[in-house]
Amino acid sequence: MSDLLWQKPGVAVDARIQSFLAGDDVLLDREFFACDIAASRVHAQGLRRIGMLSGDELSALERELDALAEDFRSGAFVLDERYEDGHSAIEARLVERLGEAGKKLHAGRSRNDQVLVATRLWLKEKIQRVAMLAREVATVALDRAEAEATLPMPGYTHLQRAVVSSAGMWWAGWAEAFIDDARRAIDTRNLIDANPLGTAAGYGVNLPLDREFTTEALGFARMQVSPACAQLSRGKFELAALEALGSAMLDLRRLAWDLSLFASAEFGFIALPAKYTTGSSIMPNKRNPDVIELMRATYASVAAAKAEIEQLLSLPSGYHRDLQVSKGALFHGFGKGLAALALLPDLLRKLDWKPEAMRNALEPSMYAADLAVDLAKQGVPFRDAYKQAADPARWSEGDPRASLAARVSPGAAGDLRLGELRRRLEAIAR
Amino acid sequence: MSDLLWQKPGVAVDARIQSFLAGDDVLLDREFFACDIAASRVHAQGLRRIGMLSGDELSALERELDALAEDFRSGAFVLDERYEDGHSAIEARLVERLGEAGKKLHAGRSRNDQVLVATRLWLKEKIQRVAMLAREVATVALDRAEAEATLPMPGYTHLQRAVVSSAGMWWAGWAEAFIDDARRAIDTRNLIDANPLGTAAGYGVNLPLDREFTTEALGFARMQVSPACAQLSRGKFELAALEALGSAMLDLRRLAWDLSLFASAEFGFIALPAKYTTGSSIMPNKRNPDVIELMRATYASVAAAKAEIEQLLSLPSGYHRDLQVSKGALFHGFGKGLAALALLPDLLRKLDWKPEAMRNALEPSMYAADLAVDLAKQGVPFRDAYKQAADPARWSEGDPRASLAARVSPGAAGDLRLGELRRRLEAIAR
Amino acid sequence: MSDLLWQKPGVAVDARIQSFLAGDDVLLDREFFACDIAASRVHAQGLRRIGMLSGDELSALERELDALAEDFRSGAFVLDERYEDGHSAIEARLVERLGEAGKKLHAGRSRNDQVLVATRLWLKEKIQRVAMLAREVATVALDRAEAEATLPMPGYTHLQRAVVSSAGMWWAGWAEAFIDDARRAIDTRNLIDANPLGTAAGYGVNLPLDREFTTEALGFARMQVSPACAQLSRGKFELAALEALGSAMLDLRRLAWDLSLFASAEFGFIALPAKYTTGSSIMPNKRNPDVIELMRATYASVAAAKAEIEQLLSLPSGYHRDLQVSKGALFHGFGKGLAALALLPDLLRKLDWKPEAMRNALEPSMYAADLAVDLAKQGVPFRDAYKQAADPARWSEGDPRASLAARVSPGAAGDLRLGELRRRLEAIAR
Amino acid sequence: MSDLLWQKPGVAVDARIQSFLAGDDVLLDREFFACDIAASRVHAQGLRRIGMLSGDELSALERELDALAEDFRSGAFVLDERYEDGHSAIEARLVERLGEAGKKLHAGRSRNDQVLVATRLWLKEKIQRVAMLAREVATVALDRAEAEATLPMPGYTHLQRAVVSSAGMWWAGWAEAFIDDARRAIDTRNLIDANPLGTAAGYGVNLPLDREFTTEALGFARMQVSPACAQLSRGKFELAALEALGSAMLDLRRLAWDLSLFASAEFGFIALPAKYTTGSSIMPNKRNPDVIELMRATYASVAAAKAEIEQLLSLPSGYHRDLQVSKGALFHGFGKGLAALALLPDLLRKLDWKPEAMRNALEPSMYAADLAVDLAKQGVPFRDAYKQAADPARWSEGDPRASLAARVSPGAAGDLRLGELRRRLEAIAR
Repeated sequence: MSDLLWQKPGVAVDARIQSFLAGDDVLLDREFFACDIAASRVHAQGLRRIGMLSGDELSALERELDALAEDFRSGAFVLDERYEDGHSAIEARLVERLGEAGKKLHAGRSRNDQVLVATRLWLKEKIQRVAMLAREVATVALDRAEAEATLPMPGYTHLQRAVVSSAGMWWAGWAEAFIDDARRAIDTRNLIDANPLGTAAGYGVNLPLDREFTTEALGFARMQVSPACAQLSRGKFELAALEALGSAMLDLRRLAWDLSLFASAEFGFIALPAKYTTGSSIMPNKRNPDVIELMRATYASVAAAKAEIEQLLSLPSGYHRDLQVSKGALFHGFGKGLAALALLPDLLRKLDWKPEAMRNALEPSMYAADLAVDLAKQGVPFRDAYKQAADPARWSEGDPRASLAARVSPGAAGDLRLGELRRRLEAIAR
Repeated sequence: MSDLLWQKPGVAVDARIQSFLAGDDVLLDREFFACDIAASRVHAQGLRRIGMLSGDELSALERELDALAEDFRSGAFVLDERYEDGHSAIEARLVERLGEAGKKLHAGRSRNDQVLVATRLWLKEKIQRVAMLAREVATVALDRAEAEATLPMPGYTHLQRAVVSSAGMWWAGWAEAFIDDARRAIDTRNLIDANPLGTAAGYGVNLPLDREFTTEALGFARMQVSPACAQLSRGKFELAALEALGSAMLDLRRLAWDLSLFASAEFGFIALPAKYTTGSSIMPNKRNPDVIELMRATYASVAAAKAEIEQLLSLPSGYHRDLQVSKGALFHGFGKGLAALALLPDLLRKLDWKPEAMRNALEPSMYAADLAVDLAKQGVPFRDAYKQAADPARWSEGDPRASLAARVSPGAAGDLRLGELRRRLEAIAR
Repeated sequence: MSDLLWQKPGVAVDARIQSFLAGDDVLLDREFFACDIAASRVHAQGLRRIGMLSGDELSALERELDALAEDFRSGAFVLDERYEDGHSAIEARLVERLGEAGKKLHAGRSRNDQVLVATRLWLKEKIQRVAMLAREVATVALDRAEAEATLPMPGYTHLQRAVVSSAGMWWAGWAEAFIDDARRAIDTRNLIDANPLGTAAGYGVNLPLDREFTTEALGFARMQVSPACAQLSRGKFELAALEALGSAMLDLRRLAWDLSLFASAEFGFIALPAKYTTGSSIMPNKRNPDVIELMRATYASVAAAKAEIEQLLSLPSGYHRDLQVSKGALFHGFGKGLAALALLPDLLRKLDWKPEAMRNALEPSMYAADLAVDLAKQGVPFRDAYKQAADPARWSEGDPRASLAARVSPGAAGDLRLGELRRRLEAIAR
Repeated sequence: MSDLLWQKPGVAVDARIQSFLAGDDVLLDREFFACDIAASRVHAQGLRRIGMLSGDELSALERELDALAEDFRSGAFVLDERYEDGHSAIEARLVERLGEAGKKLHAGRSRNDQVLVATRLWLKEKIQRVAMLAREVATVALDRAEAEATLPMPGYTHLQRAVVSSAGMWWAGWAEAFIDDARRAIDTRNLIDANPLGTAAGYGVNLPLDREFTTEALGFARMQVSPACAQLSRGKFELAALEALGSAMLDLRRLAWDLSLFASAEFGFIALPAKYTTGSSIMPNKRNPDVIELMRATYASVAAAKAEIEQLLSLPSGYHRDLQVSKGALFHGFGKGLAALALLPDLLRKLDWKPEAMRNALEPSMYAADLAVDLAKQGVPFRDAYKQAADPARWSEGDPRASLAARVSPGAAGDLRLGELRRRLEAIAR
């Protein structure tokens, strides 16, 4: 391993202990190494503004940071166990290439604010991507709701056949749910859009850092003012982001459940394109909807990430090494969550209904609620109408499209109000 | 038990099973019974607008609903196991008092949207209260930060003495953290501020319900358009609210940790008013900071509520009885969380520092980081300066107030920027 | 409220704070009040053995403790907010009735070991009940597996039709799963079967308590030797018990899922007795399997209890007030869990299959795996046989009973080995 | 990627979807690849016993499986994305090397029982290692308890100084706690010590597999009889193992908390060897107890693994792809947990007390409970004695060793009963 930044002469290092401390930390740092480099560049610019670097030093640092970013992208530089972590790797490289200028970069910052700024930059992009994907899902759902507004399908409660419903109502439900998820993702992005750079180890520094400049240069909406708060926010903002991601994953889980049932022979409502299925090693007859099942399972990974962070945060204020564990959790949750969400729009676009099977699942009892309301409209008090309509003798095969057309309460099949949902989708800040 | 709304002639009811089904459901319904009555009143008004009730019927229903609300408040009406749930209790009472008009109220709604609207009304108020309390905590913290801006205290990382800090920095950290919590609470309130009334059992109804009217009359910001989405949101919006509450509880947990340590003899930084402590049944000498410890423990109850709901939500779309379990979880989490938060502002106001103990905990090593930066200001590359400043021979007793005054990075002791935090606090929508 | 045991003259008590501290603690204490009284009785006997009570004092204490237990059972004594907690209530009552003898009872114990011993006594009984119910479920399942060994039903993987299976195989699976759960419950009971009484506040006392006597008198298998360990075990043993309960609840959740699907019109494999269903407030046609759904939901309550305790246990050694929160969590988890489990044996006994629907769900493709193995038996390498059997042209309607009879791998339909499972069930210690 | 076992002619495979399906699955399979090979070897032997392989075929398979195991160990064979998973890799290699014999191996098994048997073999070893490490920790603690039986240290409740305690009592507490953990680990190993091989995809096969043979050859204590139960146990037994690991981690978390406080300047009770500490990138004065903090944090990773699995298990019976996610969770939890536990014995052996600091933390009030009991011994009713002893005027500097010697309740400092704990430690089955 390269020299530890903080190593002191005469203090031996134990390889087994260092390995426990390091864990897979430096490998995880690959995930936001580009963000760390970008923030380092802006930190250098900030140091120049308060005279802690010369113009030449800044130029050299910018050049080498750009080169490092490019080498990392291309694979010419590999971030690995030679370094204690990504932060140390940046400094080691700069010192190796630039000597004194490299040694100057860490003035006014600590690895504590360095990891915070890299995480926030990385996370802003990821949560934005959640919002974008949720919007895309909502758009597909709205388009299909419009196209299939009057396609009859059974409506269930308790997995029991309840009333006549439509593909349009089913799609509109997912559309509105994912609109809410997109909105929440954006709210969360705004919440975490605050710059911790310059808070050092939680107590600030004796330098007049130009934090307004770094805040703007890094594209943050505001500064995290209090250094103590920057430390208190560790884990908390990652958890908030995972919770927002989790909201979309909860909807994905329920959607995947629907699809899993619909894809069974017993329901038989959909045909999944073969590419979304896999086979069995022993049963030659199987085509299994594994993609749907792994989508359903993804909430578990987000929940795991949340649990890992939650369990860490029973601590006094200030930094503790425990907090480092949050990094792997965050990457795990967003890695799995975004992978699942990214496949969803296309899967939904390609979904084929089997209208006949849906039609066959409608039965006379499913018009009983309509009947009760119709009686109520004629003046029978609803509770009495309900009792009359409970008599199977009064049930008969109905016309599903007529039932849907008569369902005129706002949002129901007779008045879907997709335009309102489109307006809301558009209104979500990007 | 009163007649079940859905009971059919000739179908026996098993007491043991009914008791399992009911659980403590009707007792839990007391919590939002007032909201259920209020929403029922507006639903009646809506029915009148579409001609499903006469003017006289509406007046009678309004009068009896008001009377029921008043009787419930006064204790003249007790919601208990005589009823299957609160919803049934309302209908039973109205039918008993009004006959036919009472039987008409349920036209166009289901218990599914009834519980959703009551929960959302209840929750909007609770989450608003979280925001208000977080604001109050932040205000106390800002006031004390200002008053104690220069009071020296040790700054820790890893629970090890690190640098000189101040009470001002400590308070400012909590202020900004709770400002973020208040903001998140308001965002969450806005997210859940949508009216499900009129979505019935998730498929709408064959009546032209005036949902714009009920939305406005109940004070909701918007309508939940899709009935399917209203059902999909069950559990999800409660979880979102608990997560926002949890954010404040995470901060409370860390704050309580600080206070717990500070109140130990070893730290000795604070004196807790006796009324915040309790004694032991066996050790006559003890005064224990139980209030602080129960505050610290409160996150656990919120986490439990979140876990309970999360575990339920692996379901296909539509209503399933599983979802009912979310109600107790929600009440448990908010009950415990708000109780803890409500005591906090006063506790913080009354906290007495022991400045001498804080001063005594400062030691020469804690000026080493200042020294390294000072050397860097004189042109020594920071990493070299760091190595020089690591030599204990260079450490000496310093002047904490001078160290604090020199800490001029924005947000640090020399430039606390409390005004900026106050502006943010004011800017949070109410 | 009665006098606080630890109250000191001149220290005011704040009602709002006391109410926060008390929470619903004294009401929760009702749950194990009988255990607390029983342990108090044995503690008194132990004190007599070391001369800390006279024979008369012991007799008086025994008499009054018995009377209190009886009054509590009958409702003549109500444990409520007049007391800080159940422990205080016992002492208060004894002092009121007996004077000095009552004041002597607490020598050598603390509320810390008092709550621990009551909890362990209570929990031993509850976890034993889990084992007993799991055994009962397994017995029902074994009986039905035997009776329905050859009843064909479809076997699924990924909710897709896979191979021919039988009711016998389905029941045998649940039997073995609940046998494992029973065994784990007994292991867990044995793990927690240790006596904490006499460890006081975690540091023992300066009295030669006869802990061997109290251990035996209370029916514990061993003594918790170390007072520090007794405190460390708080929360940990409750969590272990909830985890064992959770194991059975996980199986119940999956079983309820099967039943929920089987009860749908699409599968249509079972008929639920009407008493296990409920109706809808708006849809007159509905009979919903709410019992099954609430059974499925019960794991959530156990998970909540586990989460609540887990979150508490990030603490240094020794007692902290945080730990008190574990009590409500424990009662919640076991209350809900045992209620659900208690209904299960009867529900399973009463379940009616619809054999024709199960038979209709068998299709030619489901014999393909049999075919591949048959080809392999004739010498075709399995992977080639698999490919040949993947050709739909080779699939044809088969005889399900012949397929089941040929499934002779141990445990499969042709060789169910129920006797071995019965032996295991019998071998579980009680 | 190599051919998919189940690939059918003419069905296109989508790279993006395959990548989502594969995830990091094949990389995870490295973890138990050796177990998978070992079980495959025994499966081949079993096939030979029922005539499905010739003697030559078996010899060839054994030889190539041994070679594969060796190549994997040496790095000559790398398990990577060329394969769908480790199971497919084994078959692909055997087919490549042996042709027909390789194609015969999968007769009578599915990847479903293949992954189950590999996981159980792997997990038996890991949980055994937990037990061994817990035993080792307990041994260190018992040895030190004996050596330091009378070393005074303060006893705390609520982090407040309570009574005089000793290092002996502190160590004995950890000893007993880890003895319980070792016992639970062994119980859990026994619970999962059951052979799923031969249950195929959950429905057995039409071959008379010699499962008694494979059970014994693989070293399992018993057979999993029911194929359906084998599938039901997926996730459930992994969760049980993580829960047992978690029990030890809960103790480690509390132990690490003690050490974290004791290592602070304020307590100052211990000196950590420098190799267990790290430095800061900005503060030259720091030596931080990162090892202790990461040990404390490890419970979070185990909790995450538990949460990930728990969230998956809301499923009907039978295999679903969701269950695959449990694999990564299991490896994450045991990887982190065992790494932390493995460092603990040495850390505890090397811990140096600072007896003077511990002595200085004793104060007169800490003898008050002793005093109350002494008064009770003289006949003052305990509650009255308590009140007398609450008077600070009666407190005075005491002799800690005398206080400890008088603490004669079994398990307390005057009667530690370490022999009993050693007996229990020895009695735990290995």
